[in-house]
Amino acid sequence: MTETTLAIGDLEHIVEAIMRKGGLSPLHAGALTRAIVAGERDACKSHGVYRVEGCLRTIKAGKVVPDAEPELTSDDSAIVRVAAKGGFANAAFELGAPVLAEKARQFGLAALVINDCTHFSALWPEIEALTAHGLAAMAMCPSYASVAPSGGSGPLLGTNPFAFGWPRPGRTPYVFDFATSVAARGEIELYRRAGKPLPEGWAIDTDGKPTTDPEAALNGAMLPFGGHKGSAISTMIELLAGVMIGDLTSPEALEALGTTALAPAHGELILAFDPARFAQGRAGDPMARAETLFEAMVGQGARLPSQRRFAAREKALAEGIRLTAEEMALLERLREKGLDAV
Amino acid sequence: MTETTLAIGDLEHIVEAIMRKGGLSPLHAGALTRAIVAGERDACKSHGVYRVEGCLRTIKAGKVVPDAEPELTSDDSAIVRVAAKGGFANAAFELGAPVLAEKARQFGLAALVINDCTHFSALWPEIEALTAHGLAAMAMCPSYASVAPSGGSGPLLGTNPFAFGWPRPGRTPYVFDFATSVAARGEIELYRRAGKPLPEGWAIDTDGKPTTDPEAALNGAMLPFGGHKGSAISTMIELLAGVMIGDLTSPEALEALGTTALAPAHGELILAFDPARFAQGRAGDPMARAETLFEAMVGQGARLPSQRRFAAREKALAEGIRLTAEEMALLERLREKGLDAV
Repeated sequence: MTETTLAIGDLEHIVEAIMRKGGLSPLHAGALTRAIVAGERDACKSHGVYRVEGCLRTIKAGKVVPDAEPELTSDDSAIVRVAAKGGFANAAFELGAPVLAEKARQFGLAALVINDCTHFSALWPEIEALTAHGLAAMAMCPSYASVAPSGGSGPLLGTNPFAFGWPRPGRTPYVFDFATSVAARGEIELYRRAGKPLPEGWAIDTDGKPTTDPEAALNGAMLPFGGHKGSAISTMIELLAGVMIGDLTSPEALEALGTTALAPAHGELILAFDPARFAQGRAGDPMARAETLFEAMVGQGARLPSQRRFAAREKALAEGIRLTAEEMALLERLREKGLDAV
Repeated sequence: MTETTLAIGDLEHIVEAIMRKGGLSPLHAGALTRAIVAGERDACKSHGVYRVEGCLRTIKAGKVVPDAEPELTSDDSAIVRVAAKGGFANAAFELGAPVLAEKARQFGLAALVINDCTHFSALWPEIEALTAHGLAAMAMCPSYASVAPSGGSGPLLGTNPFAFGWPRPGRTPYVFDFATSVAARGEIELYRRAGKPLPEGWAIDTDGKPTTDPEAALNGAMLPFGGHKGSAISTMIELLAGVMIGDLTSPEALEALGTTALAPAHGELILAFDPARFAQGRAGDPMARAETLFEAMVGQGARLPSQRRFAAREKALAEGIRLTAEEMALLERLREKGLDAV
């Protein structure tokens, strides 16, 4: 297979041009491009250039406001709020993140609420933006009803990603970011395309019965990770990052959107914690103590999360990003035809 | 088997007398009794009267300060801190909770840090104390190294409980509280006492190999729930509720204590969120919207967490608490002999 190697900046130019051609304002085109190219750079293919087409489909369907101007409001509480006004979440996050960091330093912990956004990318770029400020961070959002609660029989919860990060000055942070379903919907889609049965325990069919048929699973419901515990965490995400922030839960997002083929519209909750403030007056440097924990984990053969991603990043920064001929052709087609290509 | 039925108040008198006999100050005897009797009342046997003996053992070993006076400090941040000064956590929580609730209303969210405590009981009593204030709450703490990280070979993480609650005015709250290990240590202990093999996937032996022998599991390591995802959440708890708050991680707690047979000493982190503040200016009442979500869950056959516990509570409030002859004999022995009985 012929591959093309692109410098990160070159891929950014291509993706940004497609986003502009698709009608996104410069603000959104830039923010989305950064998120998508970061995914591709980190060999996180499910959040890389593969997503460009879906982004255009969401714009074409009129399900996102391509030139929304996110608006930040802040009072004397520890909550900063960004109204995304129907635009993609990325620019809203970039607007809110510095204020969130400032409030976390002021109050010890703080929350960023993003309302009325279309969430598109992984949560780890947002987590990493906060760990870069020396903060610990937690992020979560609903998606759309596609996961049955533990003991249930049909789709209700979303795949509801949960992400967390801890800063490691001078090196890549401790970061995890995962769906609270056993598998991501994209993974089931890959089994379907490959004509392979799913592993047991991933999904139920429309009758609520366990199934290993990817088609039946996509029509039925996925299952939460870790049984009733994962189901409870997913429900917590619906409550905190849907109900509490006055934004859509996953069943409401599906109802509003009418399909699972477009990016979901809802809100997002990001919490930031200032370790220096929390550790104040206590013995030991939290940064050094965390390293002791990480060393003990790695020392017994466990891997820290995101290491595969960071290794890919290092390689991409040194050698550029490799895309297949199909991926290049797709990008070329999208750049030429814009929304007409999707 | 002969059973004795006791009114809740009568069991409280018995347990409190044992705690006083064991040397706890009235403050601690009262707070611990409330937590233990709440566990027994809710048929949560692993945190019920079964724990009384372990409490006395911890006192006898000199691993807890029986008359510690918890001290609260609060500044203009959203963090309130209670120094437990080596005492049991319960009284420290009771001191800090009202200030946490006040700060959560003031700032939208707030944190209670408990330092240098001996953690003894479940987290749900603390969660329920905050949902009773109309707040959402999250609580977590390390325990002691007994769980292998995903991919690891020996004990490092604790069973690290994670708990969350959402208020439901006029009814029992939405609450979950679970160990981030597949099973709680107390459950494995119950298998050991019953001489029954563990389910597959709960634990590894001292060689890092899977085992179903409770004794080998207690000597080896338990496994996190949900594979690498549960392992990541457990690590997050070590970082936030150990390292960040300047208190012991699970490996440090084990090293400090030297045994897993006594209650662990460390810190605890409790977060509280004010839904009214977070939902301000947004459409819909968060309390009503949460009920819609719960109804949809129950409507498709899923159970909300803690329902078994709440049903047991209702029964206990109406009919009293039933204890076996062995349990009564144990309580009688502890009441008579105090620390000499353990």
